Amino acid sequence: MTIPTPYLLYLGDSADPADVKTSRGIAAFRPDVCVGEFRHEDCALTLNLPRMGFEQAVAAGAKTLVLGVANAGGKLGEALIEDALAALKAGLDIAAGLHQRLANEPRLAEAALKHGRTLHDVRVPASDIPVGTGFPRAGNRLLTVGTDCSVGKMYTSLSLVDGLRARGVSADFRATGQTGILVSGNGVPLDAVVADFMSGSIEQLAPARNDDGWDVIEGQGSLFHPSFAGVSMGLLHGAQPAALVMCHDPSRAHLRGIPGRSLPDVAECLAANLEAARLTSPNVRAVGVALNTSAMDEDSARRACETIGAAVQLPCSDPYRMGVDSILDRLLESGKSSVEVAA
Amino acid sequence: MTIPTPYLLYLGDSADPADVKTSRGIAAFRPDVCVGEFRHEDCALTLNLPRMGFEQAVAAGAKTLVLGVANAGGKLGEALIEDALAALKAGLDIAAGLHQRLANEPRLAEAALKHGRTLHDVRVPASDIPVGTGFPRAGNRLLTVGTDCSVGKMYTSLSLVDGLRARGVSADFRATGQTGILVSGNGVPLDAVVADFMSGSIEQLAPARNDDGWDVIEGQGSLFHPSFAGVSMGLLHGAQPAALVMCHDPSRAHLRGIPGRSLPDVAECLAANLEAARLTSPNVRAVGVALNTSAMDEDSARRACETIGAAVQLPCSDPYRMGVDSILDRLLESGKSSVEVAA
Repeated sequence: MTIPTPYLLYLGDSADPADVKTSRGIAAFRPDVCVGEFRHEDCALTLNLPRMGFEQAVAAGAKTLVLGVANAGGKLGEALIEDALAALKAGLDIAAGLHQRLANEPRLAEAALKHGRTLHDVRVPASDIPVGTGFPRAGNRLLTVGTDCSVGKMYTSLSLVDGLRARGVSADFRATGQTGILVSGNGVPLDAVVADFMSGSIEQLAPARNDDGWDVIEGQGSLFHPSFAGVSMGLLHGAQPAALVMCHDPSRAHLRGIPGRSLPDVAECLAANLEAARLTSPNVRAVGVALNTSAMDEDSARRACETIGAAVQLPCSDPYRMGVDSILDRLLESGKSSVEVAA
Repeated sequence: MTIPTPYLLYLGDSADPADVKTSRGIAAFRPDVCVGEFRHEDCALTLNLPRMGFEQAVAAGAKTLVLGVANAGGKLGEALIEDALAALKAGLDIAAGLHQRLANEPRLAEAALKHGRTLHDVRVPASDIPVGTGFPRAGNRLLTVGTDCSVGKMYTSLSLVDGLRARGVSADFRATGQTGILVSGNGVPLDAVVADFMSGSIEQLAPARNDDGWDVIEGQGSLFHPSFAGVSMGLLHGAQPAALVMCHDPSRAHLRGIPGRSLPDVAECLAANLEAARLTSPNVRAVGVALNTSAMDEDSARRACETIGAAVQLPCSDPYRMGVDSILDRLLESGKSSVEVAA
């Protein structure tokens, strides 16, 4: 799937910043592909992009309206449908990662056909995914893993890609979730892939690579999350990573969605990920810990990084606050870091 | 079960016994519903059932042709489609558990309509599966795990259920694969469940149980199989097992479908399964090893059981050849074996 850019980002009439996190993520990481934002008069939020109507956005070059909103239930509401119909008429494609598919709404399907536009449902996996094999493949791959869901794996991955490119190293972000797919224009919606094809979908997403560049693969879930550990395991084996970065939120009271169940210790979690990753990547190594310290003040954040970094003997940083230089230094320090493949 | 019996079991032109495990499993565990087998001239395999053509099978009372073959990826090949079309014409329903659905092949759908027959896709999961939680639930649950795919987890599970019942202990088989579902009439086609819902589907399959009986849950794949370990992990966490039985085929040269990759050591595999299982079942214990010694003579089989049993300090037996009494003795020896749930 390739979604035409640039984007017009949808805010609609959202009031809660959490509801527009997909639009916000795209604005933060791909400002180069965002021509503006669409919001109604009563919308109190902004991404600090030019506010535009649909015709105006088309005139400014926009190709796709991204419905980067997450309302309760992931449903397509009536207001969303009306706006999408107007956007199609104006000449925009529509992209969304809601549970309810754009293509299953007859009015949208009909309007897309009529106006020659395309509906991009990013949560629909490809139909030609192979079963994974674990066969060694060439290339440098880094996977972000985590102690929990939603601890910053996408942010960390994108920061690492930016950091590598800033050092002149070729790098590509490989998205595995809906926001990441919309940020990068393609990827695998891993949580919607059928169980038997999880590792195969990642082998397809990040195939053999013969330059010296890096595929930075967005992690999902946690090996210690009872709801999703199987997803994390399939991703780990499919990624065949040369390097892991562990992501963690030190202020999280319990695993996401599981009151009463605490997060694993970072060192324990890292050891389990390395052990499991060795099945398809025997020489895998950890190169850093990325903390999400957004709930902490500057001093507490620095202390958390020092404490955890010392405990696991790895560079530890909040990518958003402190950058990823220390992690990249570790990643690039050894001459040979890719998965070794016999000739 | 809504699939009409008796069955005609399909072998086609399969050459590898592992490819016909569904047909073989049904023949072994439900001989009462099998009137015969269908195989081509060049098929070297047999289930020791009468060989029949489709018309002959209908005359003998067969109602459904079971396409009990399982290639990696679960695709419908051209030969399979041709045979299924002939069977529909002769008056048989078709049942299959391939990933590629019978109903999605236009020629089969059309022929079924024309001849008034039904296509039964057993690999279609329910639509109301919740996300798993790992919350402790009451009940005795045993899960069979394995060093590889197709090493006898279903056989072992069914043998354990029979053995428990023979001792007067209430027990139920919980199927997680197509063969198990065809044998028992219900279950979860785990490998076809969408990734995010794997552990939840098993929590739904084997819910809280308040008698002293056992749910014996059929395992899938292996934590050491690079194609399917994520499925095994989701199953392990969802099962929340009080007891594990490790299944292994000592004569297997490499992991199924992965030439050159050897099977893990039984002790190492058992340790990894226990470690992962503790996430949702802290007091889980191993109670035995079940070997598939079908490729070995009697003496070699006995020696293999002795050697492996001694190495892991557990009862070790081939359920098919030697029964499961030693494993059941270990399972039932301690007074309290269920998952402990706080009041």
